[in-house]
Amino acid sequence: MKWKTKIEIKLKESILDPQGQAVEDGLQSLGYQNVSKLSIGKYLELEIETEQGKDAVAEQVTEMCERLLANPVIEEYSFDISEVG
Amino acid sequence: MKWKTKIEIKLKESILDPQGQAVEDGLQSLGYQNVSKLSIGKYLELEIETEQGKDAVAEQVTEMCERLLANPVIEEYSFDISEVG
Repeated sequence: MKWKTKIEIKLKESILDPQGQAVEDGLQSLGYQNVSKLSIGKYLELEIETEQGKDAVAEQVTEMCERLLANPVIEEYSFDISEVG
Repeated sequence: MKWKTKIEIKLKESILDPQGQAVEDGLQSLGYQNVSKLSIGKYLELEIETEQGKDAVAEQVTEMCERLLANPVIEEYSFDISEVG
């Protein structure tokens, strides 16, 4: 069975986000003055092939985020898993 | 009214993604051999304050993606808008 996983990784609220600030400033100079609280993170898509169920996939994704994909000290992540066949 | 927008930006299928390939290789060396088709993009969150409705917000977000946030030549984007108050 194949599972498609979409992972969103963003900085924790308390962490400074200079890149996000720069993009927000950029939008405002383009005239979008109604934009605020912009933050930038990473978006990953991947497929996992396994005979196991969704719970096991979620466990593996959590482990991969903790070990490699995210930095749990400064980032938080969330993901969504769906079956593709 | 405030609208929260979550934007996912990823490379088009036909564009090479060396960063994604590197991360996929990294996962495989950590023992996650069942991972494939990994791609990396950007994830943005922002708030828009306006008296207008959801359609107008969607229009503004599309415009911001085309003009600054994404590179429409090599990237595709999707977004989700919800009211926060």
